[in-house]
Amino acid sequence: MMYAAPIEVLIEQFESLPGIGRKTAERLAYHVIHMPKDKAENMAHAIIDAKERIHLCSCCFNLTDQDPCNICSNPKRDKSVICVVENPKDVTAIEKTKEFFGLYHVLHGAISPMDNISPGDLKIKELFSRLAAENIKEVIIATNPTIEGEATAMYLAKYIAPSGILVSRIASGVPIGGDLEYADEVTLGRAISGRLKLS
Amino acid sequence: MMYAAPIEVLIEQFESLPGIGRKTAERLAYHVIHMPKDKAENMAHAIIDAKERIHLCSCCFNLTDQDPCNICSNPKRDKSVICVVENPKDVTAIEKTKEFFGLYHVLHGAISPMDNISPGDLKIKELFSRLAAENIKEVIIATNPTIEGEATAMYLAKYIAPSGILVSRIASGVPIGGDLEYADEVTLGRAISGRLKLS
Repeated sequence: MMYAAPIEVLIEQFESLPGIGRKTAERLAYHVIHMPKDKAENMAHAIIDAKERIHLCSCCFNLTDQDPCNICSNPKRDKSVICVVENPKDVTAIEKTKEFFGLYHVLHGAISPMDNISPGDLKIKELFSRLAAENIKEVIIATNPTIEGEATAMYLAKYIAPSGILVSRIASGVPIGGDLEYADEVTLGRAISGRLKLS
Repeated sequence: MMYAAPIEVLIEQFESLPGIGRKTAERLAYHVIHMPKDKAENMAHAIIDAKERIHLCSCCFNLTDQDPCNICSNPKRDKSVICVVENPKDVTAIEKTKEFFGLYHVLHGAISPMDNISPGDLKIKELFSRLAAENIKEVIIATNPTIEGEATAMYLAKYIAPSGILVSRIASGVPIGGDLEYADEVTLGRAISGRLKLS
């Protein structure tokens, strides 16, 4: 062992984080050791605190420190529209657009037979309960435009359609600022088949 | 604020680490929130523990959790040779080579008028005390081959030479496995001027 034990332990802790290799973990550990003591304590406290105080909203299953979350409990949100996403990060991404003012429902994954993830492993039953209990006019399916996300969207559309609730899917196409020349053919094909009338 | 407060605080903590941007900090924070509770507590504890238990060796000024450190207190090390380095990480790098069995002295930086770092800001006085008090035969200067590291090496050599102690400098040259074609001219020039006899 090249390092004193407490340094080695800290390096290994950082190394266990996703995308952090040995060299980066060493650099981070040295940084922590050179921090003022109160800064290091704040960092340790933030880890414990996030772990203890963050849980899933009992309504939309987003991560929150209150229940229901601040979106579900916001009286200004349109409670007749639910946007269905795979992960909590997707909620943040959509909130940043400032284009959506309804509620969310976080599935915590997508249907993927390859990874043994079936509808029962996701918060789909909970979504159907919400649709039955609340007065919902539209469900916007914003799962990822991947095979798993598309399969999940098809599954949800199939089971929600009979209820008469409008089911929509976010548009796929060429990214704004992108170049047709560099768009992959599937994306470009989707952009053409999903074309919108301009007049 | 898009995130619940405890998540935002944790993201900001990770973002304050060197080389960690907002996106990576978000990814790390989500990872921590999804960790088992005991794993998160271990991580928080490792930060506090490293900060509390790690200090500088009173002899060589390397980071250690005991005093003197396990190198200074190892009876098998050659106590007549001191290798002078800029940072604790350099000690680890040299230990990994398994080519050096003497003691170390960590300066905690290099002389740099540009950054307002003068000899008095480094552990140079402490090095001179060791040279006066202990029976040292050789000082190997292993500061970085940068302008600051070279300046520090020249400074140390100038002040140690009159005592009769042998002062040496680690070799600079083309890295093993490297290609002459891609070596910068300063490195290649140093490799030529520092050439060694083969016979």
